[in-house]
Amino acid sequence: MKATFYEGNKTFSVKETEIVAPAAGEVRIKVAYCGVCGTDVHIYHGMMDQRVKIPQIIGHEMSGEIDALGEGVSNFSIGDKVVVRPLDNRGEKPSDKGFSHICKELKFIGIDSQGAMQQYWNVPSFTLHKLPATTDLKLAALIEPLSVACHDVRRGRLKAGETAVVLGGGPIGLLVAMVAKSVGAQVIISEVNPKRIALAEELGFLAVNPAKTDLIEYVNSKTENRLADVVFEVAGVQPALDTMTEVAGIRGRIVMVAIHGQPKPINLFKFFWKELELLGARVYEGEDYEQSIQLITKGELPFERLITAVEPLTNIQGLFEQIDTNPEGMKYLLNCQA
Amino acid sequence: MKATFYEGNKTFSVKETEIVAPAAGEVRIKVAYCGVCGTDVHIYHGMMDQRVKIPQIIGHEMSGEIDALGEGVSNFSIGDKVVVRPLDNRGEKPSDKGFSHICKELKFIGIDSQGAMQQYWNVPSFTLHKLPATTDLKLAALIEPLSVACHDVRRGRLKAGETAVVLGGGPIGLLVAMVAKSVGAQVIISEVNPKRIALAEELGFLAVNPAKTDLIEYVNSKTENRLADVVFEVAGVQPALDTMTEVAGIRGRIVMVAIHGQPKPINLFKFFWKELELLGARVYEGEDYEQSIQLITKGELPFERLITAVEPLTNIQGLFEQIDTNPEGMKYLLNCQA
Repeated sequence: MKATFYEGNKTFSVKETEIVAPAAGEVRIKVAYCGVCGTDVHIYHGMMDQRVKIPQIIGHEMSGEIDALGEGVSNFSIGDKVVVRPLDNRGEKPSDKGFSHICKELKFIGIDSQGAMQQYWNVPSFTLHKLPATTDLKLAALIEPLSVACHDVRRGRLKAGETAVVLGGGPIGLLVAMVAKSVGAQVIISEVNPKRIALAEELGFLAVNPAKTDLIEYVNSKTENRLADVVFEVAGVQPALDTMTEVAGIRGRIVMVAIHGQPKPINLFKFFWKELELLGARVYEGEDYEQSIQLITKGELPFERLITAVEPLTNIQGLFEQIDTNPEGMKYLLNCQA
Repeated sequence: MKATFYEGNKTFSVKETEIVAPAAGEVRIKVAYCGVCGTDVHIYHGMMDQRVKIPQIIGHEMSGEIDALGEGVSNFSIGDKVVVRPLDNRGEKPSDKGFSHICKELKFIGIDSQGAMQQYWNVPSFTLHKLPATTDLKLAALIEPLSVACHDVRRGRLKAGETAVVLGGGPIGLLVAMVAKSVGAQVIISEVNPKRIALAEELGFLAVNPAKTDLIEYVNSKTENRLADVVFEVAGVQPALDTMTEVAGIRGRIVMVAIHGQPKPINLFKFFWKELELLGARVYEGEDYEQSIQLITKGELPFERLITAVEPLTNIQGLFEQIDTNPEGMKYLLNCQA
């Protein structure tokens, strides 16, 4: 079979490797598609060379079919369509208070261990979610990032009739917007890139360029001056941090979706004055995966429009180079059997 | 009667004024005691000269007895012991979503209008909470700041068996600690001032000087490595903001009690990693007052120990000067009939 390896220095190799039998408690998956996560791009850029073990097979936004069962795996069958929730919580302790998905000893499969950018992938069966037999496996590669969005929306306790403002209209921003819409909220996306604004509008969202339009006034006009009930900070830049405390209304909830590596100035006075909440959100839990699977398989939302390109596994190097040169791109997938 | 006036330039005057009949919907209160809030000290320091109307009667941490009833006030009687919840929400709008206590047009009685540092005070009857006839009116002057603490603890959703870390052992920090203890939490106070540490310990709290002891290690040792379930940031300084995200455990809630006038650097990565929550808290709601009245009137907690000094109303100037020279002081009261 073919497997791809991150070799450091912005380089992937493609090699022939042995197909390995699954260990006890594991399954072997014939990987159908694997999407490229922002984290995968970080790895490609060498930002995580101290965490990955070069040469490393990366990738975790995948879909596939079970190809072989290890000893003791009884709740799955060969041929089942599945996705992997790539969280290995086997080091969980009582001090983690039951929050498995963010336990201190959490290992992320595809970063801390081998990932899905290969033809066959062995994983523990506890990571699997089964898909209906009719599921489109290309769309199913979006289940992992969509689960992030489901988790973000759940953390924000967003309800029907409320207004969500999404700061940043990239792939995760649009997925958050789609989940927010699916729960019955009014959604306003703030984004500066004209092509991303156009896509957001094409997907049916209100989209505002805050460099051209006063976002606060705009949101006030759409909410009878209530401003946002929930703000999703997905942009990861200081102007978004400055805006989030302004655009949130009284008792507004702000979900921190972006990852800020350094401490950043935050207007704490606004937290006091409007009794705002800031909610950290990281990965997902099982119920987020189930919600995400529902959304993908019901087929009511235009997820297909988020797929910018699909490349064969063997062109992994070209795909990552393409991502770097196209700031408007959304989701990029590898076809792992092509 | 005697009334005191903030005249600007760190100066109070004491004047003879007319006792005025209460308007319709108002009551006249014979003020018993009025405590000095941090905000009153800010006013004295000239920090709020643009908001107050000099000469201004300030003060809102009060207790007293109803002395006269205005037209249409039927749910109170002359002689009732009362405290005032000094929030005038008559400008409330639908866009405030029912959060009266932080509505956009909120007026704070005793800052935006005349306060309690006088012998008789006329206030709208909707601001009143009735006290049991046996209530000690000196302790009752602590009901307003204690209600702040009740609100903070409620915002933090602190439960029995959880661990609360209070950053800052001043008057509000100790009141938060007392309320936290009353709900059944383990309480750890972080404070650098040795006299405040001594008082915290005398009141039965675990108290740590973070300049001498590693607070994170200490809290870990008291929580089987769970760290804090709820952190109260009461200190208002950058080291406390740096500590709060460290000392909070997985899914920890951080209540922002201190008022930070300027944007401050916050470790947002920790919010992501541990799925922390930051909760803004401002003043109180009716139920916080009721809880606070219960705590004061049950007499199970040593609130008396928080009263540093009681001075006659006519010595208001001396009292504010005393506060400025005594950084270890807790609550200072004016006896408004002396």
